[in-house]
Amino acid sequence: MSERVIEGIGATPRTGVGSVVWYRPAETGDESGEPVPEAEREAERDRFETARERAHEELDAERERTAERVGEEEAAVFDAHRQFLDDPQIETGVTEAIEGGTPAAGAVREAFEGPIAQFEGMDGQTAERADDLRDVRDRLVRLLTGGERVDLAELPEGSILLAERLTPSDTAQLDPERVAGFATATGGRTSHAAIFARSLAIPAVLGVGSDLESIEEGERIVVDGEEGIVAADPTDERVADARAGPEEAAIRERVATSDGRKIEVAANVGRAADLEGAVSQGADGIGLYRTEFLFLDREEPPAEDEQYERYVEALEAFPEGRVVVRTLDIGGDKQIPYLDLPAEENPFLGERGIRRSLGSDRELFETQLRALLRAGAVAGGDLAVMFPLVSTVEELDRALDRVEAVADSLASEGLEYAIPELGVMIETPGAVFVAEELASRVDFLSIGTNDLAQYVMAAARENERVADLHDPLHPPVLRAIRRSIEAAHDNDAWIGMCGEMAGDPDLTELLIGLGLDELSMSAVTIPAVKANVGAVETDRANDLAERALATTTRADVTNLLTDP
Amino acid sequence: MSERVIEGIGATPRTGVGSVVWYRPAETGDESGEPVPEAEREAERDRFETARERAHEELDAERERTAERVGEEEAAVFDAHRQFLDDPQIETGVTEAIEGGTPAAGAVREAFEGPIAQFEGMDGQTAERADDLRDVRDRLVRLLTGGERVDLAELPEGSILLAERLTPSDTAQLDPERVAGFATATGGRTSHAAIFARSLAIPAVLGVGSDLESIEEGERIVVDGEEGIVAADPTDERVADARAGPEEAAIRERVATSDGRKIEVAANVGRAADLEGAVSQGADGIGLYRTEFLFLDREEPPAEDEQYERYVEALEAFPEGRVVVRTLDIGGDKQIPYLDLPAEENPFLGERGIRRSLGSDRELFETQLRALLRAGAVAGGDLAVMFPLVSTVEELDRALDRVEAVADSLASEGLEYAIPELGVMIETPGAVFVAEELASRVDFLSIGTNDLAQYVMAAARENERVADLHDPLHPPVLRAIRRSIEAAHDNDAWIGMCGEMAGDPDLTELLIGLGLDELSMSAVTIPAVKANVGAVETDRANDLAERALATTTRADVTNLLTDP
Repeated sequence: MSERVIEGIGATPRTGVGSVVWYRPAETGDESGEPVPEAEREAERDRFETARERAHEELDAERERTAERVGEEEAAVFDAHRQFLDDPQIETGVTEAIEGGTPAAGAVREAFEGPIAQFEGMDGQTAERADDLRDVRDRLVRLLTGGERVDLAELPEGSILLAERLTPSDTAQLDPERVAGFATATGGRTSHAAIFARSLAIPAVLGVGSDLESIEEGERIVVDGEEGIVAADPTDERVADARAGPEEAAIRERVATSDGRKIEVAANVGRAADLEGAVSQGADGIGLYRTEFLFLDREEPPAEDEQYERYVEALEAFPEGRVVVRTLDIGGDKQIPYLDLPAEENPFLGERGIRRSLGSDRELFETQLRALLRAGAVAGGDLAVMFPLVSTVEELDRALDRVEAVADSLASEGLEYAIPELGVMIETPGAVFVAEELASRVDFLSIGTNDLAQYVMAAARENERVADLHDPLHPPVLRAIRRSIEAAHDNDAWIGMCGEMAGDPDLTELLIGLGLDELSMSAVTIPAVKANVGAVETDRANDLAERALATTTRADVTNLLTDP
Repeated sequence: MSERVIEGIGATPRTGVGSVVWYRPAETGDESGEPVPEAEREAERDRFETARERAHEELDAERERTAERVGEEEAAVFDAHRQFLDDPQIETGVTEAIEGGTPAAGAVREAFEGPIAQFEGMDGQTAERADDLRDVRDRLVRLLTGGERVDLAELPEGSILLAERLTPSDTAQLDPERVAGFATATGGRTSHAAIFARSLAIPAVLGVGSDLESIEEGERIVVDGEEGIVAADPTDERVADARAGPEEAAIRERVATSDGRKIEVAANVGRAADLEGAVSQGADGIGLYRTEFLFLDREEPPAEDEQYERYVEALEAFPEGRVVVRTLDIGGDKQIPYLDLPAEENPFLGERGIRRSLGSDRELFETQLRALLRAGAVAGGDLAVMFPLVSTVEELDRALDRVEAVADSLASEGLEYAIPELGVMIETPGAVFVAEELASRVDFLSIGTNDLAQYVMAAARENERVADLHDPLHPPVLRAIRRSIEAAHDNDAWIGMCGEMAGDPDLTELLIGLGLDELSMSAVTIPAVKANVGAVETDRANDLAERALATTTRADVTNLLTDP
């Protein structure tokens, strides 16, 4: 038989070869359609409540697991699920159906119908929210009917998982040591399955369509996430290429545009294991070392010496490259139990990042700065430190004062230290509007597009109801990015980007055209982005950026990118 | 005896004369200091829980009352109180103290000590948050000790209330028909008591200090909120001036700067009674007609005809002036029970304003537009309509399409209608960054500083922990305002401001210098702002604005304003 190639959407610039395991979740148990007698309806309503509580527990556990394995930002999808679980419209629907005699499982199906249809009718990203609703619905139905869960963590080594679709909970279970790749009939580049695949560095192709059904259990196939294809009965050559593995694809040298403009391509590190991935994928350095993970899953904060060792470890992993450490950034959706964070009505607009470091967490901040300044003195290391969620110049001045004070006290104790490069994250519109003054006080700026888009558009990134607004390709966000870049360069500071946007290879030309000096991303996307940098011509990129900044709507930007 | 004049901070540009009633709240009942035996400590902890639940109920009721009497935005302070009530740090403190044998009331006092001291040590607005914490503490202690509440709604007519301080709940109870004014020893212009006094148009002087104690129960005094003084044993002339009343102070004609630049001074209307106040205070028109109040306190939304009549009523109140109606702006902190709003993790970053009107509330929006377009045809009326929380050009285009569609269907039904002036609120940073494109599509823009400051600074306006950041005098907010004004004028649109900032007479020169054409505010501040407009010289105002835009910190701005 000859090779059959099916096209889809590549989610990860990785290729894998393995044996097909079809995943057809037996999602529900016994679903009776019999009307419930009036006397038992209250009990039926209680069963729904119990199922909902159980669903919350499951989601909490999966959220935690995902935060640990994939990253804190990606775990936020489970917050959206929790939100749908408590949606009053759906709740009313369920209650009314049960009061009319429908059994709880059927009532859940009915109540979700309208909202799912509503999202399905919409464009782009929003349509994918229908999948989240289906997830929540199926979870409730499974819990109500005693259905069993399939354990995806225990797949045989070398499996390629095929499925109609994978939920975030499904994908978060996958073990990159065992799974050689996956392909799904539905889904796109921005679906959770795609984002998780990138974080876990699993080869993945999505949106393959119904042709996927032509591939049978046990067949040997290749999943090429770079080209976006699934190959059944692959040629020997394709198998050999796939087996060559991702290491060969990594570009170890620093890259530049075709006309010689150097672009630093660095990795985001959000858990201990990421350090290794960053090195193996050819990162030039670390553009965002999230220190939160040092503080999670423990009873008390890490001591100065322990932190020092972790920072030195990161510096040693990149003897030739820069390591940018972000000081502790909690609050918002990131909680640490022993810090007693307040319950806030709008946590994303609350006490987060530098606000806590200059307020309730002053001591923690001092300890962290001590460890960082000591690590700054490590021979051969190139350390940089940046402050999260700055929105005023006052905050930066206060943070810089703390650095001075810590330096003074280390000096008086006779300890070795060095003040690292210092920088500010551009995540709030406030920071954008005073970017000149911020840049004049530090060595660099780094744009966090996830938060910046959320504040510019006034749309929370975990809220599926406003997902279409939370997108950095909206012209207002692009203009905010441009203003920050100009402010940095006018004040002799370099500027990078470390949000999700930076790792999208389709945006590399635009981002270089906007003027960024550094791009920092999940390690797995580094080879693809590095490869794209070399193809960029600065003049053309600048022109693309100018045209993108002059557009009126996100649709204009998208059209420009697909047909420049 | 001769007149004794004591200086304080004027909160309302109003003067009142009356007889002193001292308010010394008997806040607590029996407070025993005896240690609680170990066996009873769990019960004591339950007593705390019950008190906390009761406190929540009280706050809910007071919030509703305030929303109705003072306004939705001011009612948000009660959200902050609810937040403190559930603060985990305080909860831990109470629990630990009770476990150590302290009675619940004493445990509450202990647990609040630290947080109160922390806020007290801070600057400016933040220090006032200590008062909010005291409120919450005193409420819990009263509930735990069976203390009684003083009924401030039943004060004798012509009373002038004196107190060490007034809580938001105290102030919200005051009846402007009975109370001729109040003065407190503590508090400043931005305290809740001051804001409430302005909304209720009650003469008020705050921050008088301990000299207030020299005034005795029953004395006749004058409270002059314009000059910021309290006069005991007032001269006959002062009493006559005070009695002349606010009507005389109202400036009925339109005002202009000393060099002839016309500035429209309009009123914000957030409840039915505001319309009368707007006329009596000499408003040129209505700059913000919040339609939410038409939808509150009922079982279903108002029908088209009912809305039409309300809009016509507003137009008739201002036969010579413009009436700017904002389409329904719910979501965020504004809830309407029959609309089944979703529970959101970050409601201020969720489905609000135009997002709902183009989504879940499409039918409601259509009905409202029908009523508005019909009201637009009323002879002699000058109606304008604006859309809230726009953050993309797409949203505006869709809203304008709806207006066209409604016009077409009114035409086909043979009903009289006219398309009013159309505008957009500038409340999100997104709107600021596309203000040119927005302005080119409409007749006017209107800056909502309360929301704009919240999003630019990424600081929720109801969150006391970030109150210092939520202030439009931060340079980033001023720059966002300036960018919007320039975009409007470059595109032949006029631009106004309808946030709290517009009504501060101390900022009139700055706002005119920034280029605003219209200022809209609580009716009670209109006479003071109108008076200030006449004193402004455009060149000097422009210079002040330029210098404010060039500052780096809020402190620089404040210094500039006090010592230009």
